[in-house]
Amino acid sequence: MTDRPDVETLRPLISPRSIAIVGASDDPTRIGGRPLGYMLKSGFQGPIWPVNPKRETVQGLQAFASVDALPGAPDACIVAVPAAAVPDTLEALAAKGAKAAVVFSSGFAEMGEEGKAAQDRVRAIARAGGIRVLGPNCLGVFNAHNGWIATFSSSVEQELPKPGPVAIASQSGAYGSHAFALMRTRGVQTGILITTGNEADVDLADAIGYLVRDEHTKVIAAYAEGIRDGDALRAALADAADAGKPVIFMKVGRSAIGAAAAASHTAALAGSDRVYDGLFAQYGVLRVSSTDQLLDACYAAAHGRFPAGNRLGLMTISGGVGVQMADSAEDLGMDVAEMPKDAQRTLQELLPYAAVRNPVDVTAQAFNDLSLVGTNLRMMLDQGRYDVVVAFFTVVAGSRTIAGPLIKILAEIRERFRERSIILSLVATGDIVRQYEDGGFPVYEDPTRAVAAAAALTGFGRFFARPVEAAPPSAPAGAPAVGTDALAEHHATDLLEAWGVPFVARRLVTSPDQAAAAAAELGGKVVLKIASPDIQHKTEVGGVIVGVQGDEAVRAAYASLTERVPLLRPDATIDGVIVAAMAPAGVEAVVGVQNDPTFGPVVMVGLGGVLVEVLEDVSFRLAPFGVAEARRMIAELKGAKIFAGVRGAPPADVEALADLLVRVSVFAAAEAERVVSVDLNPVRVLEAGHGVVALDALIVPAGLVPETIEEVA
Amino acid sequence: MTDRPDVETLRPLISPRSIAIVGASDDPTRIGGRPLGYMLKSGFQGPIWPVNPKRETVQGLQAFASVDALPGAPDACIVAVPAAAVPDTLEALAAKGAKAAVVFSSGFAEMGEEGKAAQDRVRAIARAGGIRVLGPNCLGVFNAHNGWIATFSSSVEQELPKPGPVAIASQSGAYGSHAFALMRTRGVQTGILITTGNEADVDLADAIGYLVRDEHTKVIAAYAEGIRDGDALRAALADAADAGKPVIFMKVGRSAIGAAAAASHTAALAGSDRVYDGLFAQYGVLRVSSTDQLLDACYAAAHGRFPAGNRLGLMTISGGVGVQMADSAEDLGMDVAEMPKDAQRTLQELLPYAAVRNPVDVTAQAFNDLSLVGTNLRMMLDQGRYDVVVAFFTVVAGSRTIAGPLIKILAEIRERFRERSIILSLVATGDIVRQYEDGGFPVYEDPTRAVAAAAALTGFGRFFARPVEAAPPSAPAGAPAVGTDALAEHHATDLLEAWGVPFVARRLVTSPDQAAAAAAELGGKVVLKIASPDIQHKTEVGGVIVGVQGDEAVRAAYASLTERVPLLRPDATIDGVIVAAMAPAGVEAVVGVQNDPTFGPVVMVGLGGVLVEVLEDVSFRLAPFGVAEARRMIAELKGAKIFAGVRGAPPADVEALADLLVRVSVFAAAEAERVVSVDLNPVRVLEAGHGVVALDALIVPAGLVPETIEEVA
Repeated sequence: MTDRPDVETLRPLISPRSIAIVGASDDPTRIGGRPLGYMLKSGFQGPIWPVNPKRETVQGLQAFASVDALPGAPDACIVAVPAAAVPDTLEALAAKGAKAAVVFSSGFAEMGEEGKAAQDRVRAIARAGGIRVLGPNCLGVFNAHNGWIATFSSSVEQELPKPGPVAIASQSGAYGSHAFALMRTRGVQTGILITTGNEADVDLADAIGYLVRDEHTKVIAAYAEGIRDGDALRAALADAADAGKPVIFMKVGRSAIGAAAAASHTAALAGSDRVYDGLFAQYGVLRVSSTDQLLDACYAAAHGRFPAGNRLGLMTISGGVGVQMADSAEDLGMDVAEMPKDAQRTLQELLPYAAVRNPVDVTAQAFNDLSLVGTNLRMMLDQGRYDVVVAFFTVVAGSRTIAGPLIKILAEIRERFRERSIILSLVATGDIVRQYEDGGFPVYEDPTRAVAAAAALTGFGRFFARPVEAAPPSAPAGAPAVGTDALAEHHATDLLEAWGVPFVARRLVTSPDQAAAAAAELGGKVVLKIASPDIQHKTEVGGVIVGVQGDEAVRAAYASLTERVPLLRPDATIDGVIVAAMAPAGVEAVVGVQNDPTFGPVVMVGLGGVLVEVLEDVSFRLAPFGVAEARRMIAELKGAKIFAGVRGAPPADVEALADLLVRVSVFAAAEAERVVSVDLNPVRVLEAGHGVVALDALIVPAGLVPETIEEVA
Repeated sequence: MTDRPDVETLRPLISPRSIAIVGASDDPTRIGGRPLGYMLKSGFQGPIWPVNPKRETVQGLQAFASVDALPGAPDACIVAVPAAAVPDTLEALAAKGAKAAVVFSSGFAEMGEEGKAAQDRVRAIARAGGIRVLGPNCLGVFNAHNGWIATFSSSVEQELPKPGPVAIASQSGAYGSHAFALMRTRGVQTGILITTGNEADVDLADAIGYLVRDEHTKVIAAYAEGIRDGDALRAALADAADAGKPVIFMKVGRSAIGAAAAASHTAALAGSDRVYDGLFAQYGVLRVSSTDQLLDACYAAAHGRFPAGNRLGLMTISGGVGVQMADSAEDLGMDVAEMPKDAQRTLQELLPYAAVRNPVDVTAQAFNDLSLVGTNLRMMLDQGRYDVVVAFFTVVAGSRTIAGPLIKILAEIRERFRERSIILSLVATGDIVRQYEDGGFPVYEDPTRAVAAAAALTGFGRFFARPVEAAPPSAPAGAPAVGTDALAEHHATDLLEAWGVPFVARRLVTSPDQAAAAAAELGGKVVLKIASPDIQHKTEVGGVIVGVQGDEAVRAAYASLTERVPLLRPDATIDGVIVAAMAPAGVEAVVGVQNDPTFGPVVMVGLGGVLVEVLEDVSFRLAPFGVAEARRMIAELKGAKIFAGVRGAPPADVEALADLLVRVSVFAAAEAERVVSVDLNPVRVLEAGHGVVALDALIVPAGLVPETIEEVA
């Protein structure tokens, strides 16, 4: 992030006041001609300077023979020339004082090594010349707010983009324009589309960062295949969260296809895509996996209401659809709270055969007297105090005789409960749907999608309204740093203990006498483990003996370890034997740190044993983080309810586990340069109030190639 | 199912040749007037006899003063009279020889006890009079194939239904017409809609059963909140599977809140929702949870191609969308197999910078020379041998200059590979979309929905093409029946062993000497358990001692059990003590039988320990079933990969577990009348080739109120 120009440098690129088009064509169907054709219709207010050495005019505008010949320094330029001519063009533009360029041309990094070198040159020119470059190999950008249409996408051919609250930032031009076209069909206007293509200079984090500051943009839709600069993306998402702007993100590449086969087990689990889940949770980003989810969330968010609670009221004229919506609501973790009893009684009097708990089934009867619909809805918002109400009115609300009066009734309620969301599910022709929308009601044909929209809105609202998170603690004074050599378990545990991670009581011993004394001091059954910086997988060499009790047994175990292990691993330095107390019973968890190549140190928590291995039930957060984040991270686990106590087990000390995660995250962030990975496996979460203890630790220092990391997780 | 009339008796209801309308109104906007108004436009070919004592004519047709006055026996009648008049009307109709009636009237079971009594009378009249009754409290039925429009739904007001391959059977009138309206918007014609309402007589199973036989119906969409007659539904779904007709089913009430709402809405609800998952898997039904899933699957299925394999080829003009589709494909278990190497080489020569593995990214370049699109697609079908190809063409294929030539190229390929599915994802205006559809290509705007459609089609295709399942074995000769008394564990295990369920070696002993002898005979460590028909939860009374070895220890354990337990449970009959061998290591599973009130005996399998408790990772099948079904049931478990061996464990004997499930299912089916539930917990699945052993068994006989059944997962 160090050499990243300030986001303000993107203003000329996305909101230019003067523009040039290098490679401008007189033919408005050609790539070099389309943007000009579009802008002649879009009402761009500033000067437009086509550059074309062969023509006097281009599409009716005066043409200039070269960049040098331009009458001034344009804010932004479109570069539609062959790849080979791009670097010289950019240099000329920089020399002329142009502030930004959009490079459509392909033939760069997507074409192999030579293209990559050309692209590196583009980047160098951009940085040296102080000119921001979008692309190359991109579909460009448009900004309907000022008529800047620097794209050759056919999606704008039949209809120019209109100003609107949504902005799309997409690495893929095809997908960005696909989403734009569908949003428009849906009646949602995309004011700004930025496609970043090969990202020689401007990348997705830049684009998002700019859109957070853009006054017209209320909702940001993002699409990425991979991120180069994780810190920058993290910063942009943090800005969006602080600004209360919802970000809806489609990150593709969730599946194993293309995953490196050689990746170790943890690397596969921490496989960078899962890290995005952690990042997105951390910054309140809604991750979507389908275009419809993207559209639905943008459409709902464009209405601008983000209730801060998740109480969901369901109103329906079909009992069955009420059930269906309740199913979806439960899937999405919404609180389908019951109406207050006295409100139920009042409703029941109004509609004797209605269901009044929630879902409130007003039955088709209410449509014989529309005021009943209003009364019901008002009571749900007033007495039911629902943050959001989803009402299923099906084709009935689409009939012209109903729609007019109904919209009038709803409008009064919309006005009175300004902070709440009211989402409708109905089937109507486009013009009637617009009337509902204009009244402030998002409309969905599919009732379960309406419920998903409610969940999306309240997800944002709750995140925006979250309490200020306690900052993670600073590193403990004098806590030791990780060196460059391999760390034996006893060194790793001692080191992490100094950073506040609790371990079981243990002693490093170097003789049978010391072992017996340590066991006696620790009391009860003990574990003996070989201590060597060269042996990371002790069980593989028979280096662990558990449940040892009594003087003789301890001495025998000591002897066995120190005789047996060197036979198997004659090269290993043996520091001695660790004698450790047996941990009390509890829930087994695993905690890890991976130094992600994109995002830096990432902390992982999972449930121990087969859960993590078979179901990959783990969650991630970027280090460092505070305790509230740690709690959310634990709560995300599919098997989290095991901490509440199952099969008669007492509740486990989740707070202590959260605290451990925070401390690990502080360590991971502070030691990021020196640590490749950390594994605490297992971590035993004791009965509530009794804390948590790690039983084992493995730290892989940076630069040290580990034997294998298969034991992890 | 015993008193269920043959499905042929529904023909007059759904395909009548003559009709009467009791309560016919001259006003075509009133409920009693709408169907006649619709049918005057729909071209119903037979006689229509309005019954209205106050008028000479109704909407221009001769009216009749009463049912008695009708000139003949109508096939079907519409009954639009107040609830109080319904029974007499039905009796008159039955007396007249009418074969079916559609009762719109509400005021029956949905209105409490009195209404329920009236509804029971409707049912009795129907059965006694040999007249099939749809409703009461239903939105009716339409059959666009013969112009029979017996509904007052406003969904048909603006446009009458058209003949088409889809039929909808829905308990909910509102939802049925909602789905119909949306299908129409989508260009999918619903030829028949049947809404069953209160189901006094005709129920959803009847409706599905009829639609399986209906020659016009190629795809069945079903909607239910709860089922009264599970056997009938099972039989109807089995018929559909045998006929190769896809059934797409929305069963609501999956969630706790949803189930509670459903219970308040419909009196019919009983049984666990999870059982439906088992039923649907067993009969190849696609369960959907959203309206869009329902529409998408019906739309795709209406094209009538169900490839029998799940090799999925992905073609795209955007690399990122290729990744996105691959993500979805992996989620859905599709096989995104690589193109053959030599085909990749050929493709690479055609498009030097395309990705050619699969997804095949032809890039926008291919749209400069459309023949390349054809060549690629042809190679994918021919050499890639994909059962289904999803091609993402976005807005590009929507342009008029592209669409015409592209459709021509695709048509030739469509013709050549008749058995394969080719699904497109693109954005175009309605008329262009129709052209693609008419060419035999389902079209989706959202590429991930296109992939879901591919999964739906191949899911049906694979089910329809499945090998004939081996019949479950018959009950072992002389296998004992379950009595009415409580069964102690040793009786339950002996009984189930006779039915072929393997258990650990064990002895019932009644003295310390016998215990010691049994332990010596079994060898190694043993388990001692109290044996009593009155104690179902032995661990709760300290009735189990594990890991006992040696003569003295066994005697002591025997003494401890026989002294301690009677102190805690003085009322319990003690049969003695079971001495059991310790089972070898393996994967722990749980197997159970529940006698579902709707579907009868249902077998459950789950992974033992916390997996079943925390994650509810279980699957169900209706008993009895064969071994292939048992294998599928095991494979459905989210944690199934534990059987393949994790953490260095050997693969487990899944075949033996499948065999055990089959035997349990045979027992459960044979003893259905006598058994409430069975629990085998745990069942240890040993290393492959070494079988499976149950360690414990609990049988709750019918009529016996169990202490608790909390152990049942």
